[in-house]
Amino acid sequence: MGALHAGHGRLMEEARAASGAVVVSIFVNPIQFNRSDDYARYPRPLEADLAFCEARRVDVVFAPTVEQMYPQPQVTFVEVGRVADYMEGSFRPGHFRGVATVVMKLFQIVQPDRAWFGEKDAQQLAVIRRMARDLNVPVEIAGVPTVREPDGLALSSRNRHLSAEERAIAPRLYESLRAAEQRIKAGETRAEAVKWAAREVLAAEPGMHVEYLELADDAEMQPVEFIAGPVRVAAAVWVGRTRLIDNILCRA
Amino acid sequence: MGALHAGHGRLMEEARAASGAVVVSIFVNPIQFNRSDDYARYPRPLEADLAFCEARRVDVVFAPTVEQMYPQPQVTFVEVGRVADYMEGSFRPGHFRGVATVVMKLFQIVQPDRAWFGEKDAQQLAVIRRMARDLNVPVEIAGVPTVREPDGLALSSRNRHLSAEERAIAPRLYESLRAAEQRIKAGETRAEAVKWAAREVLAAEPGMHVEYLELADDAEMQPVEFIAGPVRVAAAVWVGRTRLIDNILCRA
Repeated sequence: MGALHAGHGRLMEEARAASGAVVVSIFVNPIQFNRSDDYARYPRPLEADLAFCEARRVDVVFAPTVEQMYPQPQVTFVEVGRVADYMEGSFRPGHFRGVATVVMKLFQIVQPDRAWFGEKDAQQLAVIRRMARDLNVPVEIAGVPTVREPDGLALSSRNRHLSAEERAIAPRLYESLRAAEQRIKAGETRAEAVKWAAREVLAAEPGMHVEYLELADDAEMQPVEFIAGPVRVAAAVWVGRTRLIDNILCRA
Repeated sequence: MGALHAGHGRLMEEARAASGAVVVSIFVNPIQFNRSDDYARYPRPLEADLAFCEARRVDVVFAPTVEQMYPQPQVTFVEVGRVADYMEGSFRPGHFRGVATVVMKLFQIVQPDRAWFGEKDAQQLAVIRRMARDLNVPVEIAGVPTVREPDGLALSSRNRHLSAEERAIAPRLYESLRAAEQRIKAGETRAEAVKWAAREVLAAEPGMHVEYLELADDAEMQPVEFIAGPVRVAAAVWVGRTRLIDNILCRA
């Protein structure tokens, strides 16, 4: 969706390291936004994005207009069931339907052999992996680790909406995930106890409002009650008018 | 779905006349059946089908098992909205979702340049055309006219379920569509009056039960009240335990 940062840069580097031509799509996709204000204020610095891509030896930037992607009312949608049911799926109705649909369209247009997605959007990655497998899409899906600021804040195009004050408290999100991870590493197997440890960190910050904090299996993104293997700890919080998400994969 | 007849043969001839390799898929797709008895008794004469394809110089027959097409529970589906709302869509819940999903899977696996579908399933053709356009699938969709028995009955794999007695009355379906066409050609523009003429033919046959008889625009398959251009007259009827569908495109 553009407003490129070092996280996207990492995707481009991974793609560039593989053989073949590198195509970057830049498209702020209206059908995946459940709030029109979020869509309206989503940053669109196209000139800077093009320079960013050029510096990373990207071969093609595909930056269509909304009219080019949706020349007529879209009546066909790709629906990904259970993987999209919780977390982002329950708080952003229609979001993953919009994501799956536009990614399918982009895959059909660009016809890549491999596609890279950031793990910061772990549920999105799971949705796209499942879609590709269920619909036999001949594209190999690769996940790329989240890139963080020195204080732990995950890079996101929405970070630029944060005021200096909001920016100062934003790292608490990652701290809360790390607190959960420590409890898991210490042997805690009850999800509720792990979540409590993470929520305690967030509750200490009055400027941050929790939308969800969940432990889920990494493949199907279903909530887990007891931790028996690797588990994705994921959260969404509001800082002022800005919504931030983050997650980490924890192993006991 | 196999149980090949001269209607399928026509598809193969059209494909053979175009340049390139001809691939035929034969797969009785469980997720498009809304009645398990219909799925169970759908004919599967694979040996005869293979001979049929060979005689028509088909290059490849793709006849996967259910386990190959659905190795894990299918959670991703292609949903085609308004085009699938009426007629077959309203009487066979989930049918077009199953059709769109399996056709998308087949397209991704086979990656054809062009695909041929019979006009006997006019709404299915409209659903697939819309899906391909909405999801930017790089496959050209071609419709092929319905092949009929000398008495007008449209060829269908389900015709072999008809008893001799049922077979004798089955042509009434096409006759009813022709009655509608005559009213349209005579200048009638009210859909209700046209439908009445067709239903009169069907009502005269006690062995035939009408499920729907509708006039719809050919692109979006929405019911029309007044006839202003070409219109698809479509019907579904029951003859004993067998459900038959047929349609014709009428021009004033």
